[in-house]
Amino acid sequence: MRASIITVGTEILVGSILNTHAEYISNILNDLGVHVDYHISVRDNLEQIENILKGQLEKVDLIFLCGGLGPTADDMTKEAVSNVIGRSIILDEIQHKKLLKRFRESKFKMTENNLKQAMIIENSTILDNKWGIAPGEIIEYGDKKIFLLPGPPKELRPMVDEYLKYYITDNNEVVIRSLNVAGLGESVVEDKIRKLNLETKNISINTFAKFYDTEIKIIAEGRDRNSLIEKVDLIVSKLYDTFGTNIYSEGKITLNESLVKLLKEKELKISFAESITGGLLASQITSISGASSVLSESYITYSNDVKIKILGVKENTLNNYGVVSKEVAYEMAKGLRALTKSDICISTTGEAGPNPSEKEVGLNYICYYFDENKYKVVEHKFKGTRNEIQKRVCDTAILDLILMLRG
Amino acid sequence: MRASIITVGTEILVGSILNTHAEYISNILNDLGVHVDYHISVRDNLEQIENILKGQLEKVDLIFLCGGLGPTADDMTKEAVSNVIGRSIILDEIQHKKLLKRFRESKFKMTENNLKQAMIIENSTILDNKWGIAPGEIIEYGDKKIFLLPGPPKELRPMVDEYLKYYITDNNEVVIRSLNVAGLGESVVEDKIRKLNLETKNISINTFAKFYDTEIKIIAEGRDRNSLIEKVDLIVSKLYDTFGTNIYSEGKITLNESLVKLLKEKELKISFAESITGGLLASQITSISGASSVLSESYITYSNDVKIKILGVKENTLNNYGVVSKEVAYEMAKGLRALTKSDICISTTGEAGPNPSEKEVGLNYICYYFDENKYKVVEHKFKGTRNEIQKRVCDTAILDLILMLRG
Repeated sequence: MRASIITVGTEILVGSILNTHAEYISNILNDLGVHVDYHISVRDNLEQIENILKGQLEKVDLIFLCGGLGPTADDMTKEAVSNVIGRSIILDEIQHKKLLKRFRESKFKMTENNLKQAMIIENSTILDNKWGIAPGEIIEYGDKKIFLLPGPPKELRPMVDEYLKYYITDNNEVVIRSLNVAGLGESVVEDKIRKLNLETKNISINTFAKFYDTEIKIIAEGRDRNSLIEKVDLIVSKLYDTFGTNIYSEGKITLNESLVKLLKEKELKISFAESITGGLLASQITSISGASSVLSESYITYSNDVKIKILGVKENTLNNYGVVSKEVAYEMAKGLRALTKSDICISTTGEAGPNPSEKEVGLNYICYYFDENKYKVVEHKFKGTRNEIQKRVCDTAILDLILMLRG
Repeated sequence: MRASIITVGTEILVGSILNTHAEYISNILNDLGVHVDYHISVRDNLEQIENILKGQLEKVDLIFLCGGLGPTADDMTKEAVSNVIGRSIILDEIQHKKLLKRFRESKFKMTENNLKQAMIIENSTILDNKWGIAPGEIIEYGDKKIFLLPGPPKELRPMVDEYLKYYITDNNEVVIRSLNVAGLGESVVEDKIRKLNLETKNISINTFAKFYDTEIKIIAEGRDRNSLIEKVDLIVSKLYDTFGTNIYSEGKITLNESLVKLLKEKELKISFAESITGGLLASQITSISGASSVLSESYITYSNDVKIKILGVKENTLNNYGVVSKEVAYEMAKGLRALTKSDICISTTGEAGPNPSEKEVGLNYICYYFDENKYKVVEHKFKGTRNEIQKRVCDTAILDLILMLRG
């Protein structure tokens, strides 16, 4: 099956927001074995939406129309669909009742405009929107399907996650495995995979560069599920032979989740003393559900005075080596251990920029402290914006720690 | 003038990478007064590229083709253009010499494929690529212009920045102002603006919903720059009359930047005692350049024991009211003040979910502590995922503090 993803919204065309819907839906369609041919963004303009919809109905089987389901005059996706396929827009009683109830329970007043959000294309299948107001719809038109989805990502994403798999069916079985590789650039990973020569007509292997790691995704399509699983397993084992411990997790497990899981399994507590990363490192851990069993306390010691006061870093060390130094990173982590008694104490110090104060922008030190006989300080130089450098220090610390704990 | 931005690359259609080119170029075109009608992404497929190009040549004046200029078989943008407009691809002598020189100086061997990158569409204007190998091109075709730009963002972005303004000339002047409004939903903001009835034929006012705030962008186009500025100023003053202190900044200044700027101006130091937000709040401040002059230290007190040990929260208070309570938020902030002497001490406590331990998921308390006679604890209930709830607590704290400091 072939698909197009059309995003409606002037804010995209003027460059005010990024079209993340196309990427999000493509990823899921890809996993369902659907071939996405086009991503298109158009303004909130009735004629434009109509023209694009007409054109795409001739080209693909599935059309995703995202956005333009709101209450304002700008929202005209339903009108466009109605005009193109010649089907009326009607008030849906259930949606109407839900809307009235919602406004009764909120502090907002319902305006006449809001009624638009209980209107649907006749004979469509409603996709209940539990995350917002405007319902989604699936409209069958000949052998084509048109999906209407609300624009806000926090509504569209859970709807796509929850409903898509039930409404897109193909006779093919699809088997997917994905491996997350860290510590090697995407081009190196891709090159090694190409040399293994594992792809066949029905099995594709794609690499996806993330911020600091690469996902290898194996997608196999065919009639016989067991034979597909066997073939994919064989490929995965060859990839493990090639990439070894650089494969830090499988599936949708992030770097942060991997670390929290590992710390839980080993019953270890972690604390951070953050300077260059300013809280971001701790927040990557606390963003994961269940973080409280591995992190009780963490410190952002941004100024020199606070490094002395809280962590007991020596004034001499700061004066002799500067705050961005191996020596200060070590004393920070050691002091953190004395303060917290946590099993693993990690400190970060560095120059995030954009204006260097003492050392060059991008230089940083991470100390991994287990005890006085077992610690390591690592120096890195990263390029990029302030936020890129901060993020990279965090991801490096987490990845290195995962590799150390796996040992 | 009207434009379309076409991005070529299968990796976009399978959801492997986000199309950031369209947003980047749109932003610049918008500020040059060019009306962007379409963003389109297509696979590395000759027929698809040709079809889209043909269609767009009938619709718009300027076409940007991004990507597909590399040396591999997948790169077929030039071939598509050549086929559609019936102009040959020729070897450019200057580009050829540059290529030979480049390979002579590098450790890589030049393959026959690489020669493709010295080939251009005949009669095109070359845009020198100082950031990579493949040159850009501008092809005049009747009264249309086709721009060819290389795919890697680190080449495309500086080329767009450097060259676009010289090759897109319009007789119109463009004046832009943008105001950032927080504390009101986008639909409320839009509704109020519509009622003011400020738009004219040459002046558009658009609202853009961000995570927790709304940008109002006023774009005026016309011949006389001074008269445009006057008209826009008048509109801005009416918007200030309507939205008052809810306008927290102008232009590309974020919530975080606004707070850091305000704290700097007032020479105030801030510290956080974070529980539900687990470091994210501090990291929003330290993500801003110059944060060190307003934040010296900050604490993540995740467990009850640490709230007692570090902040002096009373065990009784935790037992009587629970950790997610007004009383604990207050004692956290008060203890933080004693520990840090910071001018402003903010604490957060709440239930981020997904699994509630004590109180309902989404319930949270923020305490803003200036001194024993001036503090405030605010209760909120937020919906969403763990990370959305954490982010919303942070943005709420920052916005409320901005409004308090503005008084």
